Amino acid sequence: MDLNKISGPEFLKNMSIKQLNDLSFDIRKFLIESVSKTGGHLSSNLGVVELSVALHRVFDSPKDKIFFDVGHQCYVHKILTGRAKDFPTLRQYKGLSGFQKRCESKHDVWEAGHSSTSLSAALGMAVARDLNNQNYSVVPVIGDGSMGSGMSLEALNQIGAEKRNMVIIFNDNNMSISQNVGALTDGFSKLRSSRPYNSLKTDLKTSLDKNVVGKTVLNTLINVKDTIKSSVVDAGIFGEFNLEYLGPVDGHDMKSLIQILQVAKKHNGPVVVHVLTKKGKGYPYCEEDSDGKWHGVSAFNVATGVVNSSLPENHLSWSQVFSETLIDFAKTNQDICAITPAMITGSKLEKFFALNPTRSFDCGIAEEHAATFSASLALSGKRPYFCVYSSFLQRCYDQINHDICRMDLPVVIGIDRCGLVGEDGPTHHGVFDISILNSIPNLIIAQPKDAKEAQNLLYTAFNQKHPFALRFPRGTVPYSKNIQMENIAIGSWTMFNANANSKCVVITYGTDVDKVLSKVVTNQLDVIVVNARYFKPLDTDLINKIISMKLPIITYESDMLKGGLSSSILEYINDQHLNVKIHRIGIKDEYVTYGSMNQIRKEAKIDINYLIDVINTVIK
Amino acid sequence: MDLNKISGPEFLKNMSIKQLNDLSFDIRKFLIESVSKTGGHLSSNLGVVELSVALHRVFDSPKDKIFFDVGHQCYVHKILTGRAKDFPTLRQYKGLSGFQKRCESKHDVWEAGHSSTSLSAALGMAVARDLNNQNYSVVPVIGDGSMGSGMSLEALNQIGAEKRNMVIIFNDNNMSISQNVGALTDGFSKLRSSRPYNSLKTDLKTSLDKNVVGKTVLNTLINVKDTIKSSVVDAGIFGEFNLEYLGPVDGHDMKSLIQILQVAKKHNGPVVVHVLTKKGKGYPYCEEDSDGKWHGVSAFNVATGVVNSSLPENHLSWSQVFSETLIDFAKTNQDICAITPAMITGSKLEKFFALNPTRSFDCGIAEEHAATFSASLALSGKRPYFCVYSSFLQRCYDQINHDICRMDLPVVIGIDRCGLVGEDGPTHHGVFDISILNSIPNLIIAQPKDAKEAQNLLYTAFNQKHPFALRFPRGTVPYSKNIQMENIAIGSWTMFNANANSKCVVITYGTDVDKVLSKVVTNQLDVIVVNARYFKPLDTDLINKIISMKLPIITYESDMLKGGLSSSILEYINDQHLNVKIHRIGIKDEYVTYGSMNQIRKEAKIDINYLIDVINTVIK
Repeated sequence: MDLNKISGPEFLKNMSIKQLNDLSFDIRKFLIESVSKTGGHLSSNLGVVELSVALHRVFDSPKDKIFFDVGHQCYVHKILTGRAKDFPTLRQYKGLSGFQKRCESKHDVWEAGHSSTSLSAALGMAVARDLNNQNYSVVPVIGDGSMGSGMSLEALNQIGAEKRNMVIIFNDNNMSISQNVGALTDGFSKLRSSRPYNSLKTDLKTSLDKNVVGKTVLNTLINVKDTIKSSVVDAGIFGEFNLEYLGPVDGHDMKSLIQILQVAKKHNGPVVVHVLTKKGKGYPYCEEDSDGKWHGVSAFNVATGVVNSSLPENHLSWSQVFSETLIDFAKTNQDICAITPAMITGSKLEKFFALNPTRSFDCGIAEEHAATFSASLALSGKRPYFCVYSSFLQRCYDQINHDICRMDLPVVIGIDRCGLVGEDGPTHHGVFDISILNSIPNLIIAQPKDAKEAQNLLYTAFNQKHPFALRFPRGTVPYSKNIQMENIAIGSWTMFNANANSKCVVITYGTDVDKVLSKVVTNQLDVIVVNARYFKPLDTDLINKIISMKLPIITYESDMLKGGLSSSILEYINDQHLNVKIHRIGIKDEYVTYGSMNQIRKEAKIDINYLIDVINTVIK
Repeated sequence: MDLNKISGPEFLKNMSIKQLNDLSFDIRKFLIESVSKTGGHLSSNLGVVELSVALHRVFDSPKDKIFFDVGHQCYVHKILTGRAKDFPTLRQYKGLSGFQKRCESKHDVWEAGHSSTSLSAALGMAVARDLNNQNYSVVPVIGDGSMGSGMSLEALNQIGAEKRNMVIIFNDNNMSISQNVGALTDGFSKLRSSRPYNSLKTDLKTSLDKNVVGKTVLNTLINVKDTIKSSVVDAGIFGEFNLEYLGPVDGHDMKSLIQILQVAKKHNGPVVVHVLTKKGKGYPYCEEDSDGKWHGVSAFNVATGVVNSSLPENHLSWSQVFSETLIDFAKTNQDICAITPAMITGSKLEKFFALNPTRSFDCGIAEEHAATFSASLALSGKRPYFCVYSSFLQRCYDQINHDICRMDLPVVIGIDRCGLVGEDGPTHHGVFDISILNSIPNLIIAQPKDAKEAQNLLYTAFNQKHPFALRFPRGTVPYSKNIQMENIAIGSWTMFNANANSKCVVITYGTDVDKVLSKVVTNQLDVIVVNARYFKPLDTDLINKIISMKLPIITYESDMLKGGLSSSILEYINDQHLNVKIHRIGIKDEYVTYGSMNQIRKEAKIDINYLIDVINTVIK
C-alpha cells in the first residue's frame, strides 16, 4: 500500500493478519529505501516493524500512550501515525525528527534521546491517569540494553510496588547498539530460551476451560497466569520486582504478537511482555551486523550495502585518534585501562579491547557505575581512560565530582561527541559539559585543536596525577601519528597570526582554531587567533598579554555561553581588576535543534560567517 | 576494655567469642556515651557493632579492603583501627571525620558520603588486584537501602559478569534512613525470612562429610553450596545477577558471623553475605525508632533519650516551612504531588504523606528515576514538587536537563540542604547546584531570604508553567504562616537600606540577606543590601540601577564562586558593555571541609566578619 496515504493508525483495526504482514513488508521496504537516502537509525527500526504494527492494532493511540525508550526506533510508529511523507526530510533541519517529538504529532507522548527514561515516564503517566480517574493503557517499549541501566531498575523497583496498570514491552534483541554485557544479559538469555508463549497459551486455555466457574474470563486468566508464573515460567529479574511476565513471544509473528498484547491490555497491574526481535530484520547487511555499524548509518546503496560517505584520505574520526593513541600508550604503560558505558563501537575502542582484553571494561549503559569504577581503578594505582559521550556524561556528574575529583584521582575522562552533533539534535548535543565541570575542584579540562595536539594532550593527561577531562567532537580530522609525544603545560594556550598590524583577538578552541585561522588568513584579516586548549586552568599569562595589547577581544565558543570559557575569562578579568570587555559568541540560553552542522550553527549564530561579521564590526 | 588503647585490629585475632562479645558491649556503651556528647550517626553504628568486630577478626585490614557504603556507619571500624581517643572531636573542625577518610587512617581505603558507590569501588579494587597479581579480599559493606539504588544494581550487573573475588556484606536492617520502599524490599524480606544460615550450615556439613572424595574441602564446600543455592536457597535478586549468596545470618550472633565470613573469605568469585542487623541495637530509644529520628542526632541525654538542642520558639526547619506550605496549597490544588528519593523524614514530608497518601511518592534512593517520574507527572497535567537534597540532586542532573527542562515541564524542584551543611562535610555541602543548573535553558532558580518569602516563592512556582528550582538550606528559620500569598515577579530582586549616604552595595541571597542587613545596621554602615532571590533570570533592571549609583559592589555568595551568582552578573555586565568591577566573596575552587558552620565559613573566607572587612576596605 501507499504508506504516504496513512493519516493515522485507525486503518489497522480491520486488517487481516495477512494484510498486516503485507503492510509490514511494505514498511520494511520503505524504511530501507528511505534511510538509504537520508541516513538514520535503521537496524532498530527494522527490528520493530511487526511489533509497532501490532501495538497500534491492539492499542488506541493517542488515547493509549505508546512510546519508545530512547526513541530512535520510532520510525514505524511515525509511518503509522501519518508521517511517511516526511521521511525525505528525516533528521534534517526543520524536517522530521529522528526521535519522538511532541510538537510533531499527538501520537508522540514522550520525548527522549538518552536511554532508560521510559519506565519512569510510564509510571508518571499511569499515576496521573489513576489520580484523574481516567482509563487508558500506558505502553513503554524498552530494549534489553536500556533495561539493564540503573535508572530502569530504579523505575522497576517502584513500578513493582505501585502496581499500576501498564504494559511494558521488553524488546529483546540481545543487543543495544552492539552486543550487551553484564550478568542480566545471561538472565535475559535464559528467559529467551524458556518455553515460548505459544505453547503456554495452550496450557492457559486448557486451564481456563476447566476453571471458569462464576468468574469473568479475565479474572481467571490472571489467576491461572499467576499459577503458571510461579510454577512454570521463570520471570527472571522481573519476578524480583514483583512484575507479571508474559512471553517470550516471537516479535515477527504478527498473530502471536496481537494475541499476547490483547491479554496484556486486559491485565490488572504492571505486566512485562517479552518480545524477541531481530535487529535489522529483513535487510541482510543489517541482520549480519553484530558490532553496531548499522545502528545509525549515513546514506547507503541498498543493493550493495555500501555506505556512501567514506573517510577522507589520511583522516580518522576523533574517537579513533584517541583510541589509536591509547593503544600506543598502553603498550608501554601496563596500568592503562579503558572503560566505556556501552560505547565500544561509538568510541572506536574495538581494537583496544581486542588487544588488551584484561584491561578493557564495557560497563553497559551504566555511566554512574562506570565513573566510580574508574575512580576506584585509579585509587588502586591503575590509569583508567573513561571514555563517555558528552551528553551521557551528564548521567555521571555526581560520580565525577564526588568520587573522581573530590578524591583527586587520576582518571582521564575522554569526552566524546562534545559540542554540537548535528542530526541527532538537542538530546545529543554535548554542549553542557564545560559549564557543569568548570566548578569542580581538582579537575583539568582541555580540548585539542587537531590530531597532533590530541595525541600530546592525551600524553600530558597520563603524565600527571589529577583528574583530566579531554573533550573531542564528532567527525573526522587529518591524522598522522606523532613521532615524538610532547607534554603540553597544564593551562597553556597558544597564539597564532600575531603581527604588528593585528587588529583584534579571537579566543577559540577545538576544531574552530584552524578554521578561524584559515578564514582570517584567506580574508587577509589581521586577526590574532588564540587556541584556548585548556578551559581549566586558564592561561592567565596569555590573557594578561592579550589584554595588554589593547585590541578588541572576541571569544568564539561552540558550547553553552553560560558558565563556559568566556565566563571563566570574565571572572578572571574581574577578579584581577582588569579593564576590558569581550565580545562573546556562543550558544545562548536555549536548546539547539537538529540538522546539518552548518544549518544549526547558523541558527544558533555560532557559524564562522557570523564570527567574521563580528570581527568586521569590531575592527572597523 | 579501654577502647582508647586500641592501636589496630590485630588484637582481635586471639580473642574468644566471649571476649569479642564483651568487647562489643564496651563498644556499644562507648558509642552511646560518645555520640550523646558530640552528636553524630548513632543507630546505624549500633547496628553493625558485632559485624564490624567480626569483619576485622576474619579479614586483615588494611591488606584486605574493608569499607562502608556511604560511610556514616564506620564508627566501630574507626574504634577498632585506633581512633577511639579521637571521638570527642567527632565531626568537628579538624577533628575526626564522620565518614571514612583516607588521610585519617590506612584502614580507610575508600571515601564516600553519597550512597551506593561501594560496589563500583569494590569492583575497581578487585580488578586492580587481579591485574597486579595480588591477593587480598575486597569487602564492601552495603545496606539494603543503598542496594536498591540504580548505581548499585549497575555495579551488581558487572560484578556478576566479571566474577572477581569479593565478599559483599549485605547489611540488611530493612531500613535505610527510614523505612525502605520499592518492590525489592519485598524480595529482601523474603530472603530475610528464608531458612537461616545456621541450619543450612548443618546441611552443608552433612553433605560435605558424604562427598569429600579426593577434593579439597573448599572445592566441595563451593560445589555443595551451589547445589544448595539452586535447590534450597532462593538467592533473590542476587541470583539474577549471577551472584553466590550466603545467609541470612544473625548480625548480632558473633559465632555465626565469624563462621560465615570465614566461608565467604575462601570463596572463589563474588559472594553476597546477607547479614540481618537491628538498627540502633542495644539502645532502646534507637531500637524503637522507625522513622529515622535517631539516624543522625545532636547531643542527647543518655538516660532520657532527650535531644539537647530543640527548635527555638516560633521556628521551623526550612524543610518544614516548605512542606507546611505545600500541605496548604495541596488542599486547594488537587494536582500537587510530592516526590522524594528516600528523604521523607529529612525533608519533613511525613505530614504531607499522611494527609495525601495518593499524591505522595517515596521513590527510594533513586534520584534519577524520581526526577524523570516527576517530569512525566508534570507532562500529564500534575504539579509535582520534587524535593531533593542539593548534594543528591547531583545524581539527577541529566534528568533535570534532558527530561524536565528540555521539555519545559512545570516541575517544582525543592532543593533542600543547599549551601554548606556543617559537620557532614564536603560530600554533603550543597554548593554546586547553582553552578550546574545555571546553564540549563527554561529553568528558573531562586532562594528565599526568610520563611515569608519561602511561602511566596513556592506560591509563585506553582503559579507559572516552567521548571522552577527553589533552594533552601539546613537549619531553622522564624516562621509564621502568611495570611496572604504573594506572587514574586520572576527575576525580581529587592534592595534594603538605601539612602543618600550609601557607600557600597552588597548583593547576596538566602539567609545571608537578613544577617548582612542586621550587621550593617548594627555597625552603622551605610551599605545597601540586595536580596538576589532569583539566580536565573537576574533582575537586570535592578543591576542597571545599582551600577548607575557608581558605588562599590560586593557579591557575597555561600556557594561555589565559579558559575554562581556573581559569574552570571559578570556575564550580564560584560554583554551590556557596562563598566564596573565587583568584589566577589564566595567559595573558591576547592572542597570545603567539615565542622561548625562558623568555623568552615571562616576557613572558606565567606563568614560575615570577612565581608565586613571587605566592606571596610572598599568604602574607605
